[in-house]
Amino acid sequence: MAVTRSAKPVSSDQDVGGFTAGAAAAGVRDGTARRLDVALIVSDRPCAAAGVFTTNQVIAAPCVVTRRHIEKGPIRAIVVNSGNANACTGELGERDAVAMAQATALKIGCDPHEVAVASTGVIGVPLPIERIASAVREIEPRQAGWGDVARAIMTTDTRQKTIGVEVPLAGGVVHLRGIAKGAGMIHPNMATLLAFVLTDARVGVDDLRRITARAADRSFNEISVDGDTSTNDTLLVLANGASGLEPRGDELPTFAGAVDFVCESLARQIVADGEGVTKVFEVRVKGAASDDDAKRAARTITTSNLVKTAIHGADPNWGRILAAAGRSGAKVDQRKVTVRIADVVVFASGPRPFDVETVRRILAQKDMTIELDLGLGEGTARAWGTDLSAEYVRINADYTT
Amino acid sequence: MAVTRSAKPVSSDQDVGGFTAGAAAAGVRDGTARRLDVALIVSDRPCAAAGVFTTNQVIAAPCVVTRRHIEKGPIRAIVVNSGNANACTGELGERDAVAMAQATALKIGCDPHEVAVASTGVIGVPLPIERIASAVREIEPRQAGWGDVARAIMTTDTRQKTIGVEVPLAGGVVHLRGIAKGAGMIHPNMATLLAFVLTDARVGVDDLRRITARAADRSFNEISVDGDTSTNDTLLVLANGASGLEPRGDELPTFAGAVDFVCESLARQIVADGEGVTKVFEVRVKGAASDDDAKRAARTITTSNLVKTAIHGADPNWGRILAAAGRSGAKVDQRKVTVRIADVVVFASGPRPFDVETVRRILAQKDMTIELDLGLGEGTARAWGTDLSAEYVRINADYTT
Repeated sequence: MAVTRSAKPVSSDQDVGGFTAGAAAAGVRDGTARRLDVALIVSDRPCAAAGVFTTNQVIAAPCVVTRRHIEKGPIRAIVVNSGNANACTGELGERDAVAMAQATALKIGCDPHEVAVASTGVIGVPLPIERIASAVREIEPRQAGWGDVARAIMTTDTRQKTIGVEVPLAGGVVHLRGIAKGAGMIHPNMATLLAFVLTDARVGVDDLRRITARAADRSFNEISVDGDTSTNDTLLVLANGASGLEPRGDELPTFAGAVDFVCESLARQIVADGEGVTKVFEVRVKGAASDDDAKRAARTITTSNLVKTAIHGADPNWGRILAAAGRSGAKVDQRKVTVRIADVVVFASGPRPFDVETVRRILAQKDMTIELDLGLGEGTARAWGTDLSAEYVRINADYTT
Repeated sequence: MAVTRSAKPVSSDQDVGGFTAGAAAAGVRDGTARRLDVALIVSDRPCAAAGVFTTNQVIAAPCVVTRRHIEKGPIRAIVVNSGNANACTGELGERDAVAMAQATALKIGCDPHEVAVASTGVIGVPLPIERIASAVREIEPRQAGWGDVARAIMTTDTRQKTIGVEVPLAGGVVHLRGIAKGAGMIHPNMATLLAFVLTDARVGVDDLRRITARAADRSFNEISVDGDTSTNDTLLVLANGASGLEPRGDELPTFAGAVDFVCESLARQIVADGEGVTKVFEVRVKGAASDDDAKRAARTITTSNLVKTAIHGADPNWGRILAAAGRSGAKVDQRKVTVRIADVVVFASGPRPFDVETVRRILAQKDMTIELDLGLGEGTARAWGTDLSAEYVRINADYTT
């Protein structure tokens, strides 16, 4: 998704009307309160809410609870912790997730059902619920407190991930703020992607759900660090209407484009911060028999270890790219395929001579594009992948439980 | 598949009635004839033939030609080369594969349609067909020449892979010989798995096809080195009946068990010889809603980079195993799942306390078993995987095209 011309990125201290945010250090992981690890995002009025959750059937308790709360009605706050995923924790896990909502509801004066809950960290360890509840009580949410939230939700991330956007409508400007943590389920027992998007626009819940599902498809669902989905993946979008402005008619696609832009920016920040990642590559598939086929081919290429290692080694192994497409389940007829690395054609219905050194130089860069035209139809898709480095293996093999 | 009690492994100089084999050095890769790279397996009479070929839609020319020849009728010989996969070579590739069959037919005096063709090596480079045809003419097939064939088809393999079995029937003994090369599509542009099984039993072609499909499912289709399937994967089983003995009634399952055993032995040899592989692990899934579900879960676990790196680092990260099952598409309800590493229960409807050092010791061994009981039904499956080492990345990234 390209940046909508009318959406403007803004700095991280941007205010989003009606929202406050803050964090505290609870010592979730080991009882030592060394870093921020519990955060609150609070709206002064009920928000239309939309969520996208992990498709992993081993779904964590906070995802189950939050999905239920969102289905019930509007949301007033998000409470989130890092250091412990509250996943694979059985019935106790669900009680603990509800207890996080209750502590937050008590603090801000709302119903527990109006609180969304998210967790990230180690799997299979009961939540230190008392320490978290105590931290919730001590947080003092403030305007533009996004940086604290972004830091508090980091696990193996090396950088905060946040983006602000202003969207001009006929009656004035609405604001969007995105905050995320990554980086794929790349670290042992570290449960993955959390992303929150807050806006002061007024948007109906049905529109918001449609916009959110589309934005997830065009951003987080296109990234692959290691092909594993987490037990805790959560995207939440809250719209509180504090600006008094509602995108209507032509403005609605503009607003949707801004949500796309925020999610794509967060997804790119996540990919670029993947552990052991030295390069990011984009795979564009066109000419597929269907969009689904294109998506299958693109995703299989970005998750192929042979492609990932070739990219790491700047090796123009187009045979691996073609073979990955061939096993993806998408319809592929090699007599009709064209493969480009950046703008260099390396295969067109058969091998094409190309300057190996030129392609090596392209692949030696930090990001690059691979394009497949399957020559069969109108289906298109895009996916982002990362290289596979010896460092990745070291990080994931040497972790001590 | 367990070894059938009545099948006896034998040494590699075993004779299989009616078959001769040999190899020559053609310099397929670069014109320098330093090593055996073209091989022939010849039967003195027509063989019932069954084949299993790559499911990759980017299928190599020799697979296309051999599939056609097998459908037409009996087979008299297999001609195979390493050093060049004859894959992604367009129409020229198919003409070259037919030319290999013609050269072989001319030498032994049969129809070109009675010759099966296989190739392995670099993708996208035209076959040096003259050098190969010339090598075919100079090969002198002999009884028990299996070692030469096994050496000639090696690419990145470090060891020959062969197994011989005798099966006693009521009227006497029939022989089976298996020869294979690996090791997953693990080396850049090196096209993968070739396996040939020869027997002097008399078996009807319909029985042979059923037996072969089953054996492939229980062996080669269960192994995963890197999740990539090759353009050239081929399993061929030839039965020439030279023993005069036909397994009948109860003997047919015994014979089928021997084919399973040969294929499983070859598959294990391939996995153990994977590049950058230091460990092999077996995943057993039971209690799945269906066999298909069990297979999905087992295969997703064996191909998960997070599981593979954890095994490499001897890290008892059961959360990764459970999360891989959860995203496999199989029905999974974590409240019903039991996970065992060797015989140690680490999860049973929730985390179970276990002695970490004991499990570390298990995972530090060269092979190990992981068992998941999904607690939902009667579905079972098994898959073998390998660890993911920094050495794997080095091999696959540092290759120079």
